[in-house]
Amino acid sequence: MKTIVLFGAGQSATVLIEFLESNAAQEDWQIIVVDANLSLAESKITQPQYAKAVSFDILNESERSRYIKQADIVISMLPHALHIEVAKDCVRFQKNLLTASYADKAMQELQPEIEKKRLLFLCEMGLDPGIDHMSAKKIIDEIQSKGGTITSFTSHCGGLVAPESDDNPWHYKVSWNPGNIINAGKTGGHYKENGKEVFVTYNELFQNKNLVTIPGLDRLAWYPNRDSLHYTKIYGLENVPTFIRSTLRHPDFMSGWQQLIQLKFLDENIYYNTDGKSLQTLFTEHLQQQAFDDWTYAALAGRKLNATDQLFFEQFCFLGLTDNETKINAGKCSIIDIMRFAVVNKLKLFPTDKDMIVMLHQFTYECEGKKQELDSVLIAKGENNLRTAMAKTVGLPLGIAAKFILQGRIKMTGLQIPIAKEIYEPVLAALAIEGIVFRDTYGAA
Amino acid sequence: MKTIVLFGAGQSATVLIEFLESNAAQEDWQIIVVDANLSLAESKITQPQYAKAVSFDILNESERSRYIKQADIVISMLPHALHIEVAKDCVRFQKNLLTASYADKAMQELQPEIEKKRLLFLCEMGLDPGIDHMSAKKIIDEIQSKGGTITSFTSHCGGLVAPESDDNPWHYKVSWNPGNIINAGKTGGHYKENGKEVFVTYNELFQNKNLVTIPGLDRLAWYPNRDSLHYTKIYGLENVPTFIRSTLRHPDFMSGWQQLIQLKFLDENIYYNTDGKSLQTLFTEHLQQQAFDDWTYAALAGRKLNATDQLFFEQFCFLGLTDNETKINAGKCSIIDIMRFAVVNKLKLFPTDKDMIVMLHQFTYECEGKKQELDSVLIAKGENNLRTAMAKTVGLPLGIAAKFILQGRIKMTGLQIPIAKEIYEPVLAALAIEGIVFRDTYGAA
Repeated sequence: MKTIVLFGAGQSATVLIEFLESNAAQEDWQIIVVDANLSLAESKITQPQYAKAVSFDILNESERSRYIKQADIVISMLPHALHIEVAKDCVRFQKNLLTASYADKAMQELQPEIEKKRLLFLCEMGLDPGIDHMSAKKIIDEIQSKGGTITSFTSHCGGLVAPESDDNPWHYKVSWNPGNIINAGKTGGHYKENGKEVFVTYNELFQNKNLVTIPGLDRLAWYPNRDSLHYTKIYGLENVPTFIRSTLRHPDFMSGWQQLIQLKFLDENIYYNTDGKSLQTLFTEHLQQQAFDDWTYAALAGRKLNATDQLFFEQFCFLGLTDNETKINAGKCSIIDIMRFAVVNKLKLFPTDKDMIVMLHQFTYECEGKKQELDSVLIAKGENNLRTAMAKTVGLPLGIAAKFILQGRIKMTGLQIPIAKEIYEPVLAALAIEGIVFRDTYGAA
Repeated sequence: MKTIVLFGAGQSATVLIEFLESNAAQEDWQIIVVDANLSLAESKITQPQYAKAVSFDILNESERSRYIKQADIVISMLPHALHIEVAKDCVRFQKNLLTASYADKAMQELQPEIEKKRLLFLCEMGLDPGIDHMSAKKIIDEIQSKGGTITSFTSHCGGLVAPESDDNPWHYKVSWNPGNIINAGKTGGHYKENGKEVFVTYNELFQNKNLVTIPGLDRLAWYPNRDSLHYTKIYGLENVPTFIRSTLRHPDFMSGWQQLIQLKFLDENIYYNTDGKSLQTLFTEHLQQQAFDDWTYAALAGRKLNATDQLFFEQFCFLGLTDNETKINAGKCSIIDIMRFAVVNKLKLFPTDKDMIVMLHQFTYECEGKKQELDSVLIAKGENNLRTAMAKTVGLPLGIAAKFILQGRIKMTGLQIPIAKEIYEPVLAALAIEGIVFRDTYGAA
């Protein structure tokens, strides 16, 4: 009998827990799901003969170590800041650890001890980061093993709403951490194009409409995702002239979000008292206080608008500009917190809604003197607002990796992200069997 | 407003109806679901604002034509023998028709009228036949357009049980028409290998263990599926030395089924009175009457068995050899009907069980003087015993084709199966967005 301890039972854990349960009989596992919210953890368990829910304060060291000691492997889906406590205990009690989060500095500081104790800490093992690394690295390794030279690499990923559930002017619904959505792009973007480094500030990020076309879908826009260049060396592509990692959104989302930024709705340092005020009141108060009087409902309704402004007007109304009912009543709040509240409430994934993941890697490379192109695309749709595509694509890589590590099929040690063939090859094959499949299209460049 | 009339609300219609409903608002459709069983049809409808259920005897001409007259397109998922009545009405009232069934002789006789009236009757538009044609023909067209010559084509497809729901010694559960399962292979197999035509009789069909390996899955066995050579011309592969279409099963299923055939359990002309008798009694009566005394429970339990016989013993017990409770009570029945009852009851897909579709095309071809290989594999898993992989892969091609025909995007007319680029290209792209995606692996032969 082997014990898997999972920290965090939120949105992205649903499919992971189901996967672990469905393998429990064959693999002789017991699963312990830890969450601050006991009833949330309990609600995710459907096979109580294999899994149990427990709840405690993750900062309570004795409780935490009590469960980590029992584990054969630990999976952390906690909010980013809480990983490190779990990670330190995993070092202490010599347990392997899996997370879907970035291998940050705090984690990197543990590296010597992880290596010394011959543990495996596998980070960035979700969708993005996660599946992006595995699928890109597989292609990079294949091209390079044939003697090819990659000249351009662009990797796009978006957590979107499926076309059949797309019924709002933002063409977006919330399928993951709203805090991350609301803060997306705040650090700007950094990438390399045709040999030149490009820095894009937050204020410019959403205004450029770089478009990609995927057969069968509406055109999508992209903006650079954080510091792409952090990965050039990791991918073995230091000398590639074009290296871009991006986030995909509907073009209308881009223009609307850009306008929200311009109107300072994503500012952390502007505060309002929310008590007793509707979204309409709060939005209008902000516009007036910040001297955006041209963008109040009265001003927008009173003048002739161009197409972009007309679209924004509809989007703005949808978010709450005309909502005199919904109130936050949370005392003093920053305007970005007010906007997060609006986004979470208005761009909600309803029970029968389907989300959609789109990932697209675009390569150009030279092989045997010929210029070639390769597009590799993954599309995954959710089933409803619980078994989302996001929960599948974040949870399944973690579950599959846990299985292979416990089986001894993945034997690496150290602080890793999934770029080694030993990891990506079996995990991508197992993901394909779960319906997470890339479609490749080759062509002459 | 356009009207879609669907005949048949059985197992394979679940996902189709859901697909049509989810497109109804955007496409301005109303959907009429006709089934002999009104409550079955009603149970499949989740959006009554777009879809309604009606029930009548399909052989009642006035009722049938009343609904077909209203249709902009007709989809028939009726049992094979009933299609033709619907088809004749579609000719009469000039309606386009979609089915997942073989374009048989009765249908072919309508061809001149279909063409004269410029209608489209699109048959073989499910999984197998259906997705097999589209995905194979796309690759054939691509290889031939590059000047390549195909030297071998083998196409495998199986409706199986997903590994995590595989808990019986047959490694099989019923996800589609039990009548077809029980009669599978009765007409034998016919194909071409290395230039030689091969005929395989029913008695030999399940005894050859031709194996294929798909990364991440157990090895599977295959047997030739009917008359493969019917498709050589249709696929433009008349001169290809190896042309095989097969059905995939677990190797243990093959040996067990072969033994059932040997023991005459699939014989149509041996009758027993089933009243008051358990499966154990009926199986034993058959073995004794047919002089298979070595295969009774007592005989099997009393001698030392080799591995194959030991496996069969377990399979045989699982099917009912030791079941003294379950009774058919249906008067005089053929032994194959008794066996169908056993298969349906013992190899049932339980509510949380997942089925799995595996389709694998294997090509060898020569291009620019080089021998090459291409494997193209589709794996689809169901979500439960209603939203099965079978219902997805049979229903979605029909739904997607209906959409494109109503939109005017597919404009062909005549009696067709989906081998033209005008059909397979948009339909495969739309299937990919629904998660029905082939994974291609190229290699040197």
